[in-house]
Amino acid sequence: MKAGEDQLVQRIAKALAFKRGTRLALGIGDDAALLAPRAGYATVLTCDWFLEGSHFLRDKHPPDSIGWKCLARAVSDVAAMGGEPTHFLLSLAVPGTHTGPWLDRFLRGLARAARRFGCQLAGGDTTRSDEILINVTVVGEVRADRAVLRSGAKPGDLIYVTGRLGEAEFGLRSLRQDRTASHRNSLPVRKHLYPEPRLALGRWLAGKRIATSMMDLSDGLSSDLPRLCAASRAGARIVASRLPKLKLPAEKSPKDPELIELALNGGDDYELLFTVRPSQARRLPPAFQGIPLSCIGEITRERRLLLVWPGGREEMLSARGWDPFRHRK
Amino acid sequence: MKAGEDQLVQRIAKALAFKRGTRLALGIGDDAALLAPRAGYATVLTCDWFLEGSHFLRDKHPPDSIGWKCLARAVSDVAAMGGEPTHFLLSLAVPGTHTGPWLDRFLRGLARAARRFGCQLAGGDTTRSDEILINVTVVGEVRADRAVLRSGAKPGDLIYVTGRLGEAEFGLRSLRQDRTASHRNSLPVRKHLYPEPRLALGRWLAGKRIATSMMDLSDGLSSDLPRLCAASRAGARIVASRLPKLKLPAEKSPKDPELIELALNGGDDYELLFTVRPSQARRLPPAFQGIPLSCIGEITRERRLLLVWPGGREEMLSARGWDPFRHRK
Repeated sequence: MKAGEDQLVQRIAKALAFKRGTRLALGIGDDAALLAPRAGYATVLTCDWFLEGSHFLRDKHPPDSIGWKCLARAVSDVAAMGGEPTHFLLSLAVPGTHTGPWLDRFLRGLARAARRFGCQLAGGDTTRSDEILINVTVVGEVRADRAVLRSGAKPGDLIYVTGRLGEAEFGLRSLRQDRTASHRNSLPVRKHLYPEPRLALGRWLAGKRIATSMMDLSDGLSSDLPRLCAASRAGARIVASRLPKLKLPAEKSPKDPELIELALNGGDDYELLFTVRPSQARRLPPAFQGIPLSCIGEITRERRLLLVWPGGREEMLSARGWDPFRHRK
Repeated sequence: MKAGEDQLVQRIAKALAFKRGTRLALGIGDDAALLAPRAGYATVLTCDWFLEGSHFLRDKHPPDSIGWKCLARAVSDVAAMGGEPTHFLLSLAVPGTHTGPWLDRFLRGLARAARRFGCQLAGGDTTRSDEILINVTVVGEVRADRAVLRSGAKPGDLIYVTGRLGEAEFGLRSLRQDRTASHRNSLPVRKHLYPEPRLALGRWLAGKRIATSMMDLSDGLSSDLPRLCAASRAGARIVASRLPKLKLPAEKSPKDPELIELALNGGDDYELLFTVRPSQARRLPPAFQGIPLSCIGEITRERRLLLVWPGGREEMLSARGWDPFRHRK
């Protein structure tokens, strides 16, 4: 007999169960979840699509990476507010052929991510479809007076990014080309498959009131920086030579122009982009728990985005990151 | 130039904007939404798929009904806890061909539902796909000591349903057969296209502590009642002649066996199923704001589900409602 929806829901609940002193009054198995909010905290709420064909490829992406990444992407949005994820809802639609071993591996990756991020399954919806469709809602919390928005940047603020940009995009390109799976364990491929949202760093920047604005880099710097600037009603001037680029052994590394192109337009890095008042910049270490923090430019009053090349030539920065309505699959 | 994702998000935000004294600290346009929870209230959280082919047909369902219903379905889960919806997230994936007039009509239906249910758009995610994919997360609130769960029914409790069962399923059948759209305004078709979650009734039953358990009827009584019984570790005995059946003029009405089959197995009614201690039953009026309340049977200690036919013959009730993993599209 084929497993019905109720049996699937029970398997998912079992795979994702973990002990934690949560404020979950009621989880899976009722019409809705009940959460007990913490006094003095705002609720952080975000959701993300993760769709076969657009966000992952059924034959290229290991099921456990799909499980890990669908949660990591949404958790990264909570990190970018300076918040802490607490619960999530999983909406999963799969073909009848994917309710066996594929689902088990998917759930193992998801469970590993849930434990890592301290984020407990509270509910969801399961149905069938020809393609694998995933939507994840993450609920979190942040001290009401500490949330960091996109809109807080002021002219003169310094612009920072965490980590190295373009790694995940380079990893995706390796994965698409690779027929032998020999690169599966390279750092860029691992960053593409198992991104680490910058939770501790986001909380630290928010808690210490260091960041004046913040967002995560999901579509690529050239697409995401304009969003932060638009929200802050300001512009930006960034310096190409300061971009923290992908680092590989010389024989495997692309040349400099490609490295800069990757850093500007590569998506899926889930690093943080944030701004800091110049007087506060000395409070920032060069790295936080091993993650480099790089100053790449500054916020300007003039509402345009400039990229400064070595030698001083300036050009307008064009949004060339990921946009599902402009890119073919 | 083709509209990019950012322009689409702005259109959606504009179409769904409405004034309300909400506890929305921050809505669309940042990484995540920020909500200020109300002291003494639990947060209610639920999400629902609404997928082309499974839940609606692109060529049969008017776009404004798709907009209305994707929200109504999820709001119905909040009603079934006795809660009040406050905010929602819209995850929408559409083909490039559906970002014009189709989207405008979809958003009009959604905006009408949002105003009706007092539920404000707080965020979401937009992307492109070949099929129309919708996922809605609804956040609500309920007084912490008043939420009604599926698990509270006790042997001897009387089982009630609201409204008339099978109307929406009959409406769907009319819609599938109808090539002239002449039935568009019939009550069953309207109930299928524009269901009304029983919000006021759910709140009343919870607030007055009348219901000992409650859920909404989305897949059909024969599939949903076993879920309530399983959660309450009990069984049920329902009486066929007491089911509130579809009422149509005699010349249009199906015969009695089909009416009972519709009432038992028809999905999408979004009525409430709830239980009441016999001593409390006198507090229930025969109808609430025009919605009939019908006692259809009782909860039993024996953990099986029985259906009693006129004349007294009893049979086991089989789950024949909607299950996406058992039904072909």
